[in-house]
Amino acid sequence: MKKPSIVMQSDFGIDSALVSCMHGVVKKVDSDLEIYDISHIITPFCITQASDCLSLALPCWPDGTVFVSVVDPGVGTKRKGSVALTENGSYIVTPDNGTLTKVAMLYGIKAIREIDMSFNRYPDSEDVDVFHGRDVFSYTAARLASGIISFEEVGPEYSTDEIVKYDIPPYTVEDGFVQGYASGSKDNDFGILTTNIPNKEFSKAGFELYSMLDTTLEDDEGNVVFSAPVKFCRTYGDVGYGEPLLYREVALFLGLALNMTNFARTYSIQQGKLYKLTIRRK
Amino acid sequence: MKKPSIVMQSDFGIDSALVSCMHGVVKKVDSDLEIYDISHIITPFCITQASDCLSLALPCWPDGTVFVSVVDPGVGTKRKGSVALTENGSYIVTPDNGTLTKVAMLYGIKAIREIDMSFNRYPDSEDVDVFHGRDVFSYTAARLASGIISFEEVGPEYSTDEIVKYDIPPYTVEDGFVQGYASGSKDNDFGILTTNIPNKEFSKAGFELYSMLDTTLEDDEGNVVFSAPVKFCRTYGDVGYGEPLLYREVALFLGLALNMTNFARTYSIQQGKLYKLTIRRK
Amino acid sequence: MKKPSIVMQSDFGIDSALVSCMHGVVKKVDSDLEIYDISHIITPFCITQASDCLSLALPCWPDGTVFVSVVDPGVGTKRKGSVALTENGSYIVTPDNGTLTKVAMLYGIKAIREIDMSFNRYPDSEDVDVFHGRDVFSYTAARLASGIISFEEVGPEYSTDEIVKYDIPPYTVEDGFVQGYASGSKDNDFGILTTNIPNKEFSKAGFELYSMLDTTLEDDEGNVVFSAPVKFCRTYGDVGYGEPLLYREVALFLGLALNMTNFARTYSIQQGKLYKLTIRRK
Repeated sequence: MKKPSIVMQSDFGIDSALVSCMHGVVKKVDSDLEIYDISHIITPFCITQASDCLSLALPCWPDGTVFVSVVDPGVGTKRKGSVALTENGSYIVTPDNGTLTKVAMLYGIKAIREIDMSFNRYPDSEDVDVFHGRDVFSYTAARLASGIISFEEVGPEYSTDEIVKYDIPPYTVEDGFVQGYASGSKDNDFGILTTNIPNKEFSKAGFELYSMLDTTLEDDEGNVVFSAPVKFCRTYGDVGYGEPLLYREVALFLGLALNMTNFARTYSIQQGKLYKLTIRRK
Repeated sequence: MKKPSIVMQSDFGIDSALVSCMHGVVKKVDSDLEIYDISHIITPFCITQASDCLSLALPCWPDGTVFVSVVDPGVGTKRKGSVALTENGSYIVTPDNGTLTKVAMLYGIKAIREIDMSFNRYPDSEDVDVFHGRDVFSYTAARLASGIISFEEVGPEYSTDEIVKYDIPPYTVEDGFVQGYASGSKDNDFGILTTNIPNKEFSKAGFELYSMLDTTLEDDEGNVVFSAPVKFCRTYGDVGYGEPLLYREVALFLGLALNMTNFARTYSIQQGKLYKLTIRRK
Repeated sequence: MKKPSIVMQSDFGIDSALVSCMHGVVKKVDSDLEIYDISHIITPFCITQASDCLSLALPCWPDGTVFVSVVDPGVGTKRKGSVALTENGSYIVTPDNGTLTKVAMLYGIKAIREIDMSFNRYPDSEDVDVFHGRDVFSYTAARLASGIISFEEVGPEYSTDEIVKYDIPPYTVEDGFVQGYASGSKDNDFGILTTNIPNKEFSKAGFELYSMLDTTLEDDEGNVVFSAPVKFCRTYGDVGYGEPLLYREVALFLGLALNMTNFARTYSIQQGKLYKLTIRRK
């Protein structure tokens, strides 16, 4: 049977050989394993972005895929290195530092084990303590995907309740009224805003497709940065050039964009900041 | 027999999980398929760049390769999603929005079919209408490469005459005289200018290799931005450090560059603009 | 037996199809070959960065891997195109222009041969002389990895003493005293400084782990840009947020960093410049 792919992400950047070192170690363990990448230019130390990327990619890959995520500001300290088994049977090898938050929320984690580094460690790497991405995570992922170790042999199990999670801001959905948070997404300069309102929940507001909705964005000091009627659409081309739309974004959440124009730049949305979003039936 | 590779390009950027979602869906269809990438940082909505990249990569890959190109400002609207069969037996899965222009011109397209999305669509993706790159193009490419569907099963054929094409600026080649257009190319800061004059056509001007040619660049208001004798060479090192050269560029067109120096920056060439190029025998 | 992977790096950038052309030619030679990439955004013409990347990746990949490195300011001139056989049995296909310096120093090169381009050249590519990355290096690498040609059939052998090498700045290690050079590394905005002092040599200074060391950085005009006691640690988290540390970097050399803060930006370290580093026992 075909072995599962290894799918990696990190904040290591793509202008050095660091990512290739992780790839190489996988091939050293088992040259049959294929390696793919999500992104390696995640903002340094940005665990929420790591969590977003992972939760978007996970359901698109076959069950049983072995993911490696290395956004790891605490490398070499006592944060746990872990392997999570997701509800759909895939594995995520990652520091347990919040990276699993969105996956746990959206798809569910069945079990988690702490990596026992006493034997799940790339041979002769004990001298260097700043490259667990290669020496622990990639090495363990490859041995798991290859069948050299079982999930049990990763190390001791612990309760999924103990998984480190960051706080997700709240949202409200009522008939004709939605309130939540929006932020700039990483998207090659499209400038789309993503929100924390799941598409499924948004439906419960009962807005009609193609109706106009009063939409307001406020920054954290309460300043209104955008306020206009916005069409609830299926896709960008449902509105004219440069016009705003609300729509179901690819990551299962409501999106706010301008057709063929950069929303974030037009309204000076700052990357990494949360904006309060209010939507009302007109 | 080995299945063809899937080769992808898009304007999705590489700092999110969007590209990985496309990869994953291919693997879900058939885990034997291997996936490679051209570029995913094509300038957003830039169909000419998509067309350039595709036409440069196409002849370097084995006949039968399945390309996926997703620069798709009209996603979810009535523009056609299509699969083109090239003269050399490769497939290009793309919105029919101009992306095929250069391939049609340089290599020829034998047949084209519109994707019937009623069954060529990633299951359970009907709710999201902004990710045809994953849900229609990658999914269809994988099923075609895997042999699950034939080219005929993509959907209804239409005439190759109906393929959407953008205008390509004209050029003139006479004995001792060439006139055409140059523009800045994407090239990791080398600052090379590429032109619309095919190497083969350029030969007909009868310039001798290593001769000096009077070369002028004008912007669209007729201002001369560069005017100097330039050596017609085989490669950069045929002229001194910082000196200009005309040469056969990798993409089958005449190139204009400075040896180890950035031409575009030196002469303030603006990305995306066309400059009229005139070359005369001295 | 599984064929070795092809592992590539270049300064071609990732916003064009140039890299994909190299991938495609490998697949044309043998569709069983798998291709991976180190980095293709090496600073244009920067041979020292190419050498650093290659030497970091090399030991992480299985013995027998075939590397392709194309940072080649002299493309098409009389610099040699070569294949080096490393001590661990891997191959490096590269212009012989200094790229092999660090690999030769750290891991050793057993033999080297100049590529005979009269037959080791992608068919029908004689017209273009600026793309040896595709037409000579990738093509030869693929034929070597595939077993179509042997190492002997690459072309004539020459002495490893003739390999082109750049000068590596000197360092001194005595009991309680270390002096060498530091420079900014490419690392997705972590701002880490790497040094030319191998971890193994650094040990000979006899510093105790977790001791404080008087550390000074001077620019090339003798201006002190940093001077402070710095802890010698295992990893970033061994010091407080924003505090400096000396530690064993992943590339086998001593590193200097700030925990979760950008050292290079904080102290205005200029990319590409060397800074004299002096470390003394307190």
